[in-house]
Amino acid sequence: MSVTVVGSIAFDAVRTPFGSRERMLGGAATHFALAASFFDEVRPVGPVGDDFTEEDMAVLQTRGTATDDVERVAGGKTFFWSGEYADNLNSRETLVTELNVFEQFEPKLSEASRQSDVLFLANIQPELQLAVREECTAAKFVAMDSMDLWINIAHDALVRTIRTVDCLILNDEELEMLTGRPTTVAAARELLGWGLKAVVAKQGKYGATLFTGDDVFALPAYPLEHVVDPTGAGDTFAGGFVGYVAAQGGDDPGHEELSRAMAYGTALASFNVEEFGTERVARLTADEIAERVSDLHRMTAFSEAPVALRG
Amino acid sequence: MSVTVVGSIAFDAVRTPFGSRERMLGGAATHFALAASFFDEVRPVGPVGDDFTEEDMAVLQTRGTATDDVERVAGGKTFFWSGEYADNLNSRETLVTELNVFEQFEPKLSEASRQSDVLFLANIQPELQLAVREECTAAKFVAMDSMDLWINIAHDALVRTIRTVDCLILNDEELEMLTGRPTTVAAARELLGWGLKAVVAKQGKYGATLFTGDDVFALPAYPLEHVVDPTGAGDTFAGGFVGYVAAQGGDDPGHEELSRAMAYGTALASFNVEEFGTERVARLTADEIAERVSDLHRMTAFSEAPVALRG
Repeated sequence: MSVTVVGSIAFDAVRTPFGSRERMLGGAATHFALAASFFDEVRPVGPVGDDFTEEDMAVLQTRGTATDDVERVAGGKTFFWSGEYADNLNSRETLVTELNVFEQFEPKLSEASRQSDVLFLANIQPELQLAVREECTAAKFVAMDSMDLWINIAHDALVRTIRTVDCLILNDEELEMLTGRPTTVAAARELLGWGLKAVVAKQGKYGATLFTGDDVFALPAYPLEHVVDPTGAGDTFAGGFVGYVAAQGGDDPGHEELSRAMAYGTALASFNVEEFGTERVARLTADEIAERVSDLHRMTAFSEAPVALRG
Repeated sequence: MSVTVVGSIAFDAVRTPFGSRERMLGGAATHFALAASFFDEVRPVGPVGDDFTEEDMAVLQTRGTATDDVERVAGGKTFFWSGEYADNLNSRETLVTELNVFEQFEPKLSEASRQSDVLFLANIQPELQLAVREECTAAKFVAMDSMDLWINIAHDALVRTIRTVDCLILNDEELEMLTGRPTTVAAARELLGWGLKAVVAKQGKYGATLFTGDDVFALPAYPLEHVVDPTGAGDTFAGGFVGYVAAQGGDDPGHEELSRAMAYGTALASFNVEEFGTERVARLTADEIAERVSDLHRMTAFSEAPVALRG
């Protein structure tokens, strides 16, 4: 089995209250691949420029990620994003976005990428997501992300794309914006009515909530004493979540399986934010992940003990 | 046993995206009492004015709450607060605060209130909290709330007061502000170092996290499709949390007991926000609470299943 992901491969410049980096490897497909590669072979599809070094490629190839479909655009520059985080790290300001090679990007999938059982459409133009989704006819489980920009300027194309996938993974406020519903629960219920099998609401540093049919699973973020850089946390979460589903076969995952996938996504994301960019997840071990999932289990469990309530 | 609570009894005017009320019963002690009275006899200590009607008093007395120490100030007006909520309901703007009878308030505790085993110091001036705490020498478990105002203008008095209690229940951002630490975990660890046995970080619509010694318990809020008015949610949470501890005897509660208390606080708070002011909790039943705690248990549980990770 393998997991295909289409999305950005980028260089990021970030400033957080705890330091800054002028140029670090980033992008949604990169963070996704680093996380999902713990579960399965990952096949990223996306363009890079001449400035993308062999060292950068080696990081992307961590744990056997197949980079055949990483398209090197001669004379082009890699996508560049720069941002600054507020003191509480839950909001950020984009300073610079240079699309570069992404501006003319048309995904070209190899036969191997088209044959993947699991597909993740990271946050790019909805029309491109749809084109890739339609090429991957063998996919048993397709998940996607998006962002407020596309909700605002490409709403109809986004809705059309959402109607072709199994699972939407989006920030809670974006879910509400997309549906015009005032609560995340109401937004998720509406989206399930569009034919999605699962909706995941990402809540930044607070955690994430999964909606499937009439079932809900809410999981807090792993409580961290030190957070350095949230960049890529959402895509790392998606990598853990989708990767876990792929490891189970990807065949119509049920609520319990997706709940466990949430735990892996949450654990992976918690490592991602401990250091800048890909630094922490690139050297992460399987044992560390297993230990954190166990910790998360312990830290969220409570035993029901009956108490006599006054009427 | 009984639970003494000192804090505001108020009239609130609120506007939310879902409607408004010009004058409804509110105040921290009121919301706390309505929740805690499911577990034990509650004894609120606080002043009201001539405008506080017998009907208002009857609501406060729901489930046997003893109002002997509710001081009626002749010629005075009851504390009044008015606020407006943003669309996402997680932030609000205070429009009017009229302290009225609260301006000259000096808590006067009856012998019965002084003898309570459990004490909750709702959000009032830290000096008053300290005075009440020192009168209640029999209390086995003392919890307190506060707010950004006191952190800014009465920091030292607040710290002195915190050092005399067992448990601090505060918004996550206020914990960070109080300690100058950048994460809630770092703030809680620092506060545990001051001698607290437990710190509860309230995270608004996202849930709450409990810190005791080296242990952490994180619980998401109950996922609600319809939210009408968040006013009093924090005090209702505190009422459920502290009430549960009181129902268990109040004697040095451990991490597991406090985790269950978190579940009751969370369940109670979720009902509070379904309607305006005290409307929902005033007619709540014990069965509804038990059912919601069960739902919360189910919605936050996941089973660990080993997965073979790639190295």
